[in-house]
Amino acid sequence: MSNKNVLVINSGSSSLKFAVIDSETGEALVSGLGECFGLPEATIAWKFNGEKTEEAITAPTNHHQEAINRIVKLMEELSLKETIVAVGHRIVHGGEKFTSTVRIDDAVLAEIESISDLAPLHNPAGAKGIKAAMEAYPSLPQFAVFDTAFHQTMPKKAFTGSISHELYDEYRIRRYGFHGTSHYFVSREAAKVIGKPVEETNFITVHLGNGASVCAVANGQSVDTSMGFTPQAGLMMGTRCGDLDPGVIEFLLKKGWTQEKVFETLYKKSGFLGVSGLTSDARGILEAMAEGHEGATLAFQVFTYRVAKYIASYLVPLNALDAVIFTGGIGENALDIRREIIENLSLLGFTEDKAGNEAARFGAAGQIGESALLGAKVLVIPTNEEFVIAKQSVERI
Amino acid sequence: MSNKNVLVINSGSSSLKFAVIDSETGEALVSGLGECFGLPEATIAWKFNGEKTEEAITAPTNHHQEAINRIVKLMEELSLKETIVAVGHRIVHGGEKFTSTVRIDDAVLAEIESISDLAPLHNPAGAKGIKAAMEAYPSLPQFAVFDTAFHQTMPKKAFTGSISHELYDEYRIRRYGFHGTSHYFVSREAAKVIGKPVEETNFITVHLGNGASVCAVANGQSVDTSMGFTPQAGLMMGTRCGDLDPGVIEFLLKKGWTQEKVFETLYKKSGFLGVSGLTSDARGILEAMAEGHEGATLAFQVFTYRVAKYIASYLVPLNALDAVIFTGGIGENALDIRREIIENLSLLGFTEDKAGNEAARFGAAGQIGESALLGAKVLVIPTNEEFVIAKQSVERI
Repeated sequence: MSNKNVLVINSGSSSLKFAVIDSETGEALVSGLGECFGLPEATIAWKFNGEKTEEAITAPTNHHQEAINRIVKLMEELSLKETIVAVGHRIVHGGEKFTSTVRIDDAVLAEIESISDLAPLHNPAGAKGIKAAMEAYPSLPQFAVFDTAFHQTMPKKAFTGSISHELYDEYRIRRYGFHGTSHYFVSREAAKVIGKPVEETNFITVHLGNGASVCAVANGQSVDTSMGFTPQAGLMMGTRCGDLDPGVIEFLLKKGWTQEKVFETLYKKSGFLGVSGLTSDARGILEAMAEGHEGATLAFQVFTYRVAKYIASYLVPLNALDAVIFTGGIGENALDIRREIIENLSLLGFTEDKAGNEAARFGAAGQIGESALLGAKVLVIPTNEEFVIAKQSVERI
Repeated sequence: MSNKNVLVINSGSSSLKFAVIDSETGEALVSGLGECFGLPEATIAWKFNGEKTEEAITAPTNHHQEAINRIVKLMEELSLKETIVAVGHRIVHGGEKFTSTVRIDDAVLAEIESISDLAPLHNPAGAKGIKAAMEAYPSLPQFAVFDTAFHQTMPKKAFTGSISHELYDEYRIRRYGFHGTSHYFVSREAAKVIGKPVEETNFITVHLGNGASVCAVANGQSVDTSMGFTPQAGLMMGTRCGDLDPGVIEFLLKKGWTQEKVFETLYKKSGFLGVSGLTSDARGILEAMAEGHEGATLAFQVFTYRVAKYIASYLVPLNALDAVIFTGGIGENALDIRREIIENLSLLGFTEDKAGNEAARFGAAGQIGESALLGAKVLVIPTNEEFVIAKQSVERI
């Protein structure tokens, strides 16, 4: 164990994920989750040395602060307190202001809160986590790592919408992109696999999880990505529809649907869940498909088809392609989904390495295919956003 | 002049375009436009033998019927009456019911009106034109040619949205696609250029006009297209934004914007107009760009970048590519836009034929580039939707 551990905090509106990460190896020494904040059944649970512990949070209010206080105590109990050199916070939205990881001070905190307009669910929760951690650890440096920061290198033609420029001028409506830490991490890891400096590589990184996004990474920099102004854009996801014909929303509103019902349907009842009529979970989709479930089969086809179209379209912003990289819960495990995406790209010369595809699962990286036509590999690289947060925090102490 | 001419009618909510088309050559013997219907300044104008005539429509009501009556009289004055063997109507939406051109009877008319739910502006206007023409020409067969019909061959994975299947079950919300007659026509013409039966060809057809859409045509059949449930989807257009992050609409509604303002902004104040802050017209954009106008330059870049990404993505549904085909007002004329799109596709091996690109304008077809990598040509083929309407009407008499 190094003496440069970082407490990584990902604070949501009613939950808080945490982990102590070795900033040199990326190993999680302890990891846990507080949930049901604001409700009587609020709990906090963690895993240490393979053992799970769960406790109720009994205080009536401010469960974010209670959770952080419990974590502080836990660090003492586990003799980790002295090893923690920084706290790293995952913050969803950095707007146009934050283009990389920053040390948090009052001005940064105020800025994160001011961006809440753009991320009304996420940024206030992130700010809550920061405040609680600053109170609990006043002497430790704290850092904010933004989901949007990596994408701030996108050229204007990629981040400008096709909508009126007045919406940008007045509200800063534009493409921001998310999952930046994951796209950053796997593109760096892939450069090592390819054996070139990242500045000389070109990748399409495909993060497929419950949320999903694709990114074109040219010479190490994000030049386009599928999520947009919000994380509702781009690919079909577990319950989200992704890019949409605006006429669908107009039609439903004119049918008398409330705004709440429209957006709940598009965000929480679409994607895998809505197309299949069954489940938002890719494993459930694959199992049902194996039993001949029609909706699950359609969901699989629509999802893989759309991912493949996005990958093909990202050949446009690139001048070369070294690899397509799969990551995220689905991308790291679902070999049938990866296979179907590769088959969808056959006109671009992509072929599957069957043995490689079967081997690269459950945390194993590997090559699963290639395109002889484009001179590109297809890789699986497990993501590790917490490692990035830990490393970038320590680098900035 | 053949004796198989067709009166082609395109009836909008406040206008009516018409032409007499030689069904063998596609030549327009006369063409005209009635506009400002419902207003005191309603007019009808036409061009015959190079000469233009304009008249006021003085009747106080039913300007569609008045316009048709004037056209009937005009056919007699121009000695065309006896040559007209059918009336062909361009109808925007055929729903899932109409997969090709049909002869109109009461049942068909009722069906077109029932689809008005899906095309509330266009289909009632089309039905109005049909009724007026049936009254004026009770003895002539009348045909409906649908913008959506060509796309009814799309496989389910292409036409299913990523939204809840309940929206399809209840409202038939799905991808329909439009501009079908144009994509059909240029794919048939391109097969002749390539010298293969259309059933053995694979094309990406790119219709760029004030409205714009891309279509993947496999073995002569539409297998995917960029317009969706409505013509608001897909590419950026003159004033339309195309595909959108649904979160943008939610954001604006939460800011207190009325639904009317939101959709007017997305449909009428976006696209070339909204991005440039200048004009919806591609020629105006190119002129302003030549003078260094920043907004026009950005609009040009966003538009061409997005078209190129759509073209690349349509390699997914195809097993081979014979040609990318440009058509429509912009596609047939704007060589700078075509050049930039080809340059955007350089990783796919596309290169411009500079002389060819400069020659293929103002109605001239030609090859303007190729991809050695994919073994595909880039062609310009002027569209002629009225010719298709005339020919398909005569074939079905």
